[in-house]
Amino acid sequence: MKKLLDDPAQAVDDSLRGFALAHADAVEVRFDPTFVLRAGGTPPGRVAVVSGGGSGHEPLHAGFVGAGMLDAAVPGAVFTSPTPDQVSAALQAADGGAGVLAIVKNYTGDVLNFETGVELVEAEGIEVASVVVNDDVAVEDSLYTAGRRGVAGTVAVEKIAGAAAARGDDLATVAALAERVVAGVRTMGVALTACTVPHVGRPGFELADDEVEIGIGIHGEPGRHRVTASGAHDITRRLLDPVAEDLELASGERVLLFVNGMGGTPLSELYVVYARAHDLLAERGVEVARSLVGSYVTSLEMQGASVTVLRLDDELTELWDAPVHTPALRW
Amino acid sequence: MKKLLDDPAQAVDDSLRGFALAHADAVEVRFDPTFVLRAGGTPPGRVAVVSGGGSGHEPLHAGFVGAGMLDAAVPGAVFTSPTPDQVSAALQAADGGAGVLAIVKNYTGDVLNFETGVELVEAEGIEVASVVVNDDVAVEDSLYTAGRRGVAGTVAVEKIAGAAAARGDDLATVAALAERVVAGVRTMGVALTACTVPHVGRPGFELADDEVEIGIGIHGEPGRHRVTASGAHDITRRLLDPVAEDLELASGERVLLFVNGMGGTPLSELYVVYARAHDLLAERGVEVARSLVGSYVTSLEMQGASVTVLRLDDELTELWDAPVHTPALRW
Repeated sequence: MKKLLDDPAQAVDDSLRGFALAHADAVEVRFDPTFVLRAGGTPPGRVAVVSGGGSGHEPLHAGFVGAGMLDAAVPGAVFTSPTPDQVSAALQAADGGAGVLAIVKNYTGDVLNFETGVELVEAEGIEVASVVVNDDVAVEDSLYTAGRRGVAGTVAVEKIAGAAAARGDDLATVAALAERVVAGVRTMGVALTACTVPHVGRPGFELADDEVEIGIGIHGEPGRHRVTASGAHDITRRLLDPVAEDLELASGERVLLFVNGMGGTPLSELYVVYARAHDLLAERGVEVARSLVGSYVTSLEMQGASVTVLRLDDELTELWDAPVHTPALRW
Repeated sequence: MKKLLDDPAQAVDDSLRGFALAHADAVEVRFDPTFVLRAGGTPPGRVAVVSGGGSGHEPLHAGFVGAGMLDAAVPGAVFTSPTPDQVSAALQAADGGAGVLAIVKNYTGDVLNFETGVELVEAEGIEVASVVVNDDVAVEDSLYTAGRRGVAGTVAVEKIAGAAAARGDDLATVAALAERVVAGVRTMGVALTACTVPHVGRPGFELADDEVEIGIGIHGEPGRHRVTASGAHDITRRLLDPVAEDLELASGERVLLFVNGMGGTPLSELYVVYARAHDLLAERGVEVARSLVGSYVTSLEMQGASVTVLRLDDELTELWDAPVHTPALRW
């Protein structure tokens, strides 16, 4: 294993220390327990939006902390849920007096530990609403999940909920908007290579030199099936078709198209996938009204990509377009 | 070779088509000859800033086209200089009546083809100044270069020259500022793995499982030496020390610290390198006043990173901070 790390047991803390130094204008990192807080805290009277999960998916979630998106993020160890005390500390620190929305990716450990963390702060009188993201259409149940996994669609949930909180919506409204995004967003991914968790030291699975895994999870969990590598057009179709069918996309609809890199795939290839997905949506009469292309929800150095489609309406579009100032997303 | 591409001969065009679709608000892509133009063109009366070079380093250069940075970019084939007719078409299209600054990375082919392209448009009465970036301290001459190579420091040259043009500086002033950045910026990189050029189909070199190459070029050109992989602290010191010594950095100076990913390295590892480099500069009494962390000047899917230091003064800091609205850099 070759990585730009020192002690694997310290890799998450070492990385967060660099992150804090590089982005002192947007974030503050607290240790013991570890969480990331928006610089200056949540503006008083605004709903706070908090998310978290295992590390190894950077920039998710810490990279989305800042004005217009998350007020706090809770990074666990690599591919490991954050602990309940991390969650409760982050919720408490983020609360600006108007309650907190917790955005949780649907993995058994994340859901349980967020539930416990939420109970702890509710006992202290802080109001919390939770939304569970389960956008991955690849498999129903999986290695770490009852139901569908939460993957790249989480970025849209965090952006839109954060924008609603920033404009002053109350907790029930912010939560309802987050649920609307969850209801309208679907994703499917592909892996070309496996990644290596630092403290494990070897790749999580093996793929042959000419093989790709369709429907891969963001921790290398098994997908739908392995196929012979066949080029961007064929692979993109295998990702986009199940997404479009699950959403029951109809001609004339407007969507956000998000092509996400898994960490080790060049940006130039993501744009090729984006062009193919754009064409396939056009064939269905679907208009791509907004887009995002880049490595935002990664699996360490895995090579691969995912295709996410979010059904847009005027309000979701306006919230997507609203200003955001975070280390990883800024406009 | 597994890549998210179709015909390797069409990979650059396919990717640019996706890029144009995803960023229609910031850029326009022209084909035959191929170049990327800022949407709406250069504002009349402003100096235009143009750069270019081989593809495979995305988001460099096309990702930096937009308000406050580049007015046009000229992408060649993968790791291949753009042709003189591409260069001249881009210079001509970008000119807003106040002349054009051409920013060229120091590779023999780029320098020659830009020179020819510049001569073609000067013959039509367009005023052009050129600046050659040669920030790589690793080697003096190399496979494709007489003198030092131009690498990640190019981002700083493009950002600061673009900001100067945007505030209305004349061509001589924009060129002088770009030269000031070139004089004060140094970079050194490391490779953990090689990358595969699509139309070649096999990795450009071989590294043993426990070996890294210090001083690597962005096309996989040989660096200074290979060493046994030894962790982030040791590797960062091997990159930062030659940079700091070449710049003759003194205690009390202020710098921009830029940790750049080569394409296949996770963001989390770049932050570890950033933390280490920050510490090493602090030991020298050097203040990191600005920072950039991410994969901005890549070598396809190569795993590795580079460390860039730019000596700052008040004016360069102000120009770095000025608003920028491009696909890859936005604030």
